[in-house]
Amino acid sequence: MMGAYVTTRNPDMATDPLQNLIRLLSKLPGLGPRSGRRIALHLLENRDEVLTPLSTSFQDVMLKIKTCEVCGNLDTFSPCQICTHEKRNTTQICVVENVSDLWALERTGAYPGHYHVLGGTLSAMDGRGPDDLRLKELFLRLQKGGITEVILALNATVEGQATAHYITERLFDFPEIHVTTLARGVPLGGELDYLDDGTLMTALQSRRKI
Amino acid sequence: MMGAYVTTRNPDMATDPLQNLIRLLSKLPGLGPRSGRRIALHLLENRDEVLTPLSTSFQDVMLKIKTCEVCGNLDTFSPCQICTHEKRNTTQICVVENVSDLWALERTGAYPGHYHVLGGTLSAMDGRGPDDLRLKELFLRLQKGGITEVILALNATVEGQATAHYITERLFDFPEIHVTTLARGVPLGGELDYLDDGTLMTALQSRRKI
Repeated sequence: MMGAYVTTRNPDMATDPLQNLIRLLSKLPGLGPRSGRRIALHLLENRDEVLTPLSTSFQDVMLKIKTCEVCGNLDTFSPCQICTHEKRNTTQICVVENVSDLWALERTGAYPGHYHVLGGTLSAMDGRGPDDLRLKELFLRLQKGGITEVILALNATVEGQATAHYITERLFDFPEIHVTTLARGVPLGGELDYLDDGTLMTALQSRRKI
Repeated sequence: MMGAYVTTRNPDMATDPLQNLIRLLSKLPGLGPRSGRRIALHLLENRDEVLTPLSTSFQDVMLKIKTCEVCGNLDTFSPCQICTHEKRNTTQICVVENVSDLWALERTGAYPGHYHVLGGTLSAMDGRGPDDLRLKELFLRLQKGGITEVILALNATVEGQATAHYITERLFDFPEIHVTTLARGVPLGGELDYLDDGTLMTALQSRRKI
């Protein structure tokens, strides 16, 4: 089908700056070749309004955004604004997998304590052991004392729960610390008929008095 | 709901480099606040592997990618590789709305001629008149002579068809040029039952002998 007159947009032309841009965009989470192409064109067709500001923003975050040395959050400061905030509760640490989970909890506005970002989960499949997570940093924080509660806010996935289990066992060394986890149950607006059996069973077993 | 201890990720903090990045990413086509956040985190969690190469690629395309002065294609050269290719048919011009349409046709490998990118469609609603498209450039190319066919490969939308109609009328000035358009009909793999009535009617009226 490809004739001798076909010259451009060959995906093998890695030296072509435009192909290279599309390739990089296509690999971002949630994007593919089609959306990568679409965004690349949008950037090039709106250089002054979109491409230049985004490029400047990239330079900006590369220079200014740091990983908080205490909790692993991303911020312009290290320690971050949560770790240094004077009104937050310093006796609680909420352990999350990723910064996005921290942000999700922060958006609720319902949690006054500190965080600890693990940077992932334990996974035998993907070869991630305890040393690949920020676990050592967590236990160092606990050893310093002053912490009364560790909330394990890990995802309700197999890996998340295996990681929670591992941390729980390690926390036997700190009998003075309460270890808690997020409640499982019917989500707000959830219809029982559409809920998976596991969630429904947990919600039934954890039923509470009105 | 928002307590006094909530400090970060306030969407109003436009000065925060991270919020600014998320805001810019969220406005890209096909993305929203959630996917923007997800991509921003992915970039920051993979600085060396993702953020730096993408930032370099942005600089690269800003410097090197030009709009072809002849056809409006995007390339490292102007005139572009299609316009200057010695094996392509210089008597055919295929008129498309955007560079993405040019690329789509180019991927088929079935078209040996040249292109002309309009940069959009006429639209009374959005206030886009003939002067906002690369129409003057098209007619200048035709006046130079040597063109025997103009293929109007515009989208089958109201605006696309209005634009095709406008160009067709203007091409009455060039009686020696054949004006053609893409065939309408049942797409490959299309099921009649799921096809809209207009397409089915056109396919029936344009039926051909096997």
